Amino acid sequence: MSSEKIDIEILDTTLRDGAQSEGIVFSLRDKLAVAETLDELGVMWIEAGNPGSNPKDLEFFRLAANLKLKNSRICAFGSTRKKGIRAEDDGMIRSLLDAGTEGVVIFGKSWDLHVKEVLHASDEENLAMIGETIAFLKSQGRIVIYDAEHFFDGWACNPGYALSTIRAAVKSGADRIVLCDTTGSNFPELISSAVKNVMENFPDIHAGIHAHNDSGLALANSLAAAQAGCNHVQGTLVGFGERCGNTALAALIPSLELKLNLRCLPRGNLIRIGELTRRVAEIANVIISDDMPYIGAHAFSHKAGMHTDGILKTSRSFEHVEPQTIGNERRLLISEIGGRAAIVERAKKIEPALHKDHPVIISLAEKLKKLEAEGWAYEGADASFEILIRRELGRYTPLFSIVAYRVMSEHPAGDTIECSHAWVKVLVGEQHEIAAAEGVGPVGALDGALRRALTRFFPGLAKVRLEDYKVRVIDGKDATDARVRVLIESTDGQRSWNTVGVSADIIDASRAALVDSIEFMLINEAENRN
Amino acid sequence: MSSEKIDIEILDTTLRDGAQSEGIVFSLRDKLAVAETLDELGVMWIEAGNPGSNPKDLEFFRLAANLKLKNSRICAFGSTRKKGIRAEDDGMIRSLLDAGTEGVVIFGKSWDLHVKEVLHASDEENLAMIGETIAFLKSQGRIVIYDAEHFFDGWACNPGYALSTIRAAVKSGADRIVLCDTTGSNFPELISSAVKNVMENFPDIHAGIHAHNDSGLALANSLAAAQAGCNHVQGTLVGFGERCGNTALAALIPSLELKLNLRCLPRGNLIRIGELTRRVAEIANVIISDDMPYIGAHAFSHKAGMHTDGILKTSRSFEHVEPQTIGNERRLLISEIGGRAAIVERAKKIEPALHKDHPVIISLAEKLKKLEAEGWAYEGADASFEILIRRELGRYTPLFSIVAYRVMSEHPAGDTIECSHAWVKVLVGEQHEIAAAEGVGPVGALDGALRRALTRFFPGLAKVRLEDYKVRVIDGKDATDARVRVLIESTDGQRSWNTVGVSADIIDASRAALVDSIEFMLINEAENRN
Repeated sequence: MSSEKIDIEILDTTLRDGAQSEGIVFSLRDKLAVAETLDELGVMWIEAGNPGSNPKDLEFFRLAANLKLKNSRICAFGSTRKKGIRAEDDGMIRSLLDAGTEGVVIFGKSWDLHVKEVLHASDEENLAMIGETIAFLKSQGRIVIYDAEHFFDGWACNPGYALSTIRAAVKSGADRIVLCDTTGSNFPELISSAVKNVMENFPDIHAGIHAHNDSGLALANSLAAAQAGCNHVQGTLVGFGERCGNTALAALIPSLELKLNLRCLPRGNLIRIGELTRRVAEIANVIISDDMPYIGAHAFSHKAGMHTDGILKTSRSFEHVEPQTIGNERRLLISEIGGRAAIVERAKKIEPALHKDHPVIISLAEKLKKLEAEGWAYEGADASFEILIRRELGRYTPLFSIVAYRVMSEHPAGDTIECSHAWVKVLVGEQHEIAAAEGVGPVGALDGALRRALTRFFPGLAKVRLEDYKVRVIDGKDATDARVRVLIESTDGQRSWNTVGVSADIIDASRAALVDSIEFMLINEAENRN
Repeated sequence: MSSEKIDIEILDTTLRDGAQSEGIVFSLRDKLAVAETLDELGVMWIEAGNPGSNPKDLEFFRLAANLKLKNSRICAFGSTRKKGIRAEDDGMIRSLLDAGTEGVVIFGKSWDLHVKEVLHASDEENLAMIGETIAFLKSQGRIVIYDAEHFFDGWACNPGYALSTIRAAVKSGADRIVLCDTTGSNFPELISSAVKNVMENFPDIHAGIHAHNDSGLALANSLAAAQAGCNHVQGTLVGFGERCGNTALAALIPSLELKLNLRCLPRGNLIRIGELTRRVAEIANVIISDDMPYIGAHAFSHKAGMHTDGILKTSRSFEHVEPQTIGNERRLLISEIGGRAAIVERAKKIEPALHKDHPVIISLAEKLKKLEAEGWAYEGADASFEILIRRELGRYTPLFSIVAYRVMSEHPAGDTIECSHAWVKVLVGEQHEIAAAEGVGPVGALDGALRRALTRFFPGLAKVRLEDYKVRVIDGKDATDARVRVLIESTDGQRSWNTVGVSADIIDASRAALVDSIEFMLINEAENRN
């Protein structure tokens, strides 16, 4: 365990509250991988499941005990004891002990409405349930993190009772008192007042915040709580959680560290937050939103010409933090709204001597405007743009050409062939090759035939495969004769690249994007060999 | 224009700042459709583009002048005049006037860093640029909305200068003074202090807020500004915008109306906010995030057993607002009670005797669930849904069937035929018919052949044409073998209808949508004859 000074301790509940999101299902193996990723980032606490409500979580805790975690401590999650029995006789509490974790998170009721209408208990019984559960777990040597569920709603309706539930937890020895905005309904002002009120009444506690995003305010509420005195923050790295999610820690921690100067992670780890958050998302089979604060792919993308121009004069002009501090990077987008400055930035990677007033750049800018009017868009197609630049520089010799192709879709399918089949004839140097393939759809068939024809000449193509395929109708008003834009993402297993094709014929638009993708791969292969 | 009392006027900039998002490209037709949707919702202002930097926007303004908007006013967007020339001689300012809009949004610099390092102007010159531009536009009879770019960063660094830029705008007659957090860097506390400071200095102004989401605080900052005295809020319905986006109005307006009791939209319109936001997203070919506050599909989904149990005892226990107030609905993930009400509403149009517990509705709900899991979506395909209901009711006899078809795409094209050609064999009653057609793309060719084969039997088809064609890849990870969803809009010149098709083969998905479209037209024709 690291002994560095941490100002705000982070509890990640991806494996508990996050697993309650619709559509998120973790296997045992997934859970272990998430725990290791969180440890790599360096969160202090990993809330990993509710062994009382989900017995298969016990197996996780057994295996997790063998993980060699460097930074994080795992804790199990459960509720206060049931009405009318002793804590030590409550099966759920026993399963929490069976989990064998150093820390235990216990939630209890702070809102009298819930005590009455959901628990059907008296106010006093609820206080006893809180106090006795914590006291028992403390007697068993556990670190107890107490989650005061619905605290803010309770405090707004009946502050006296809400505070008495906190008193019961403090008196029985809870190590952390976490104030929860369980329904995600409250605004930062109320959060701030309530936290300050709690801190005045219980000045010696370690207070925490657990916020939900139902009003889109989870980040703001967590920041307000930290500024009002909470030094423990709960959330999930990606923002997974019931309904609209929990506080997205990947979007919160950079604000705490960079803007409030409150250390949350071991020194040097902030830069890895984007990469590790993506890994958690990948495990959950979810894609991180491109516009996610700090770590999203678009978080430092600049499209408007005036922004691009400003950024190049002084980065502070349109960037709130330096993208590299959080392992992200600035991207100047190539589009009609952007200008020559962005084009130069990209073209320089191929020819460093280029500048804004170079004739090649001026002619590229004009060509780009014309292409965009036809529906081409290069902002998601770096590789096609690179080929365009090379062509403009006169540094591009096509390595192959398609002499002819035919793609056929037929229903019903024959007995011997799938519904779509294609043949392609290519010319490489002075040699022709013809190949055929079948596929589920016409584009798959064309891709298969083209690759088969070329692999004889370029064996490196064998390891390339398509990762993503997107189609966008550019202007629907010509209906089925409308132009379509096809975006393709390809990979060779190590890196990925994106290409674009536009045509009124979807097959031909796909052909253009496939050809760019193959050319790009071959050019890079040749340059790396030299 | 409605004369209802509005507490907070909303300016939506989907068509300007939103169009600056990476990946968002609107055609002219898309822009008109977005404007009509925003008007239907009832935002007061629609900021629709920058005619100075993007000449094709002028065509939009010309066409938009003919839209019969009920609630919204359109405005053009541009900057203060260039250094060293008169406003009336600045081509960009002239193009703003050419746009012919009632309102004009002008942005100017409030942060001395920008004045010096980006504009390379003196502090005084910048004040003159602000004042003269506004005065000139006022002299031309425009309502002027002044956007004080980087106001909060400027106010934090040099409050005196930032306030002097506001003074220049107020003195020259600006109708609104909008304070911008252009880099999205600031926290609600600073926003609140700065707005209050401005209101103390200029108590009579209409102040506004324009926030960006780089720190995930756009919603919190907009709420803080409204509470501090701003009565004009800028954003985009879905949250589109540079980098991490603008304030998502669909997540903000419910908080303003339901929690702060500040009216933003005409009475009765809040309930449509989810539906209309989805429509804007659909036009942009973007999917609304399921966890979007208030309107997301998961915003009122309850998965944890304890939450479901609590909700059934008292809805306040886990819901911050009533889902139906914003046109959303509660979903208990254990049961499918939610969806049936909506299905009944639509099915009643065909069979008024249907009710929620009717066996047809129960079986439709189950079928729909299965189809949605396969990628079908009926939200934008009323006609396909109607055919589905008729089939379930046993009131559907297909009027024709496709026995076989072949579609061929070939390059280069022959001398006698276009690149794509198709033949189709249909069966109507006991008669076969075969027809062929050529087209720019394969789907156009298939559509042509199908129509030609059927027109012999159904002459009414001659007046039907396709108005719109959209393709979406449902899951990109299988690349060219991924399933695609095709949406088709058809018209007979008087009314339009929408149909959907799904397949891993784009030709076959299009075939399904084309067949539904023709069936729908023929059924309605037959019923109107009877």
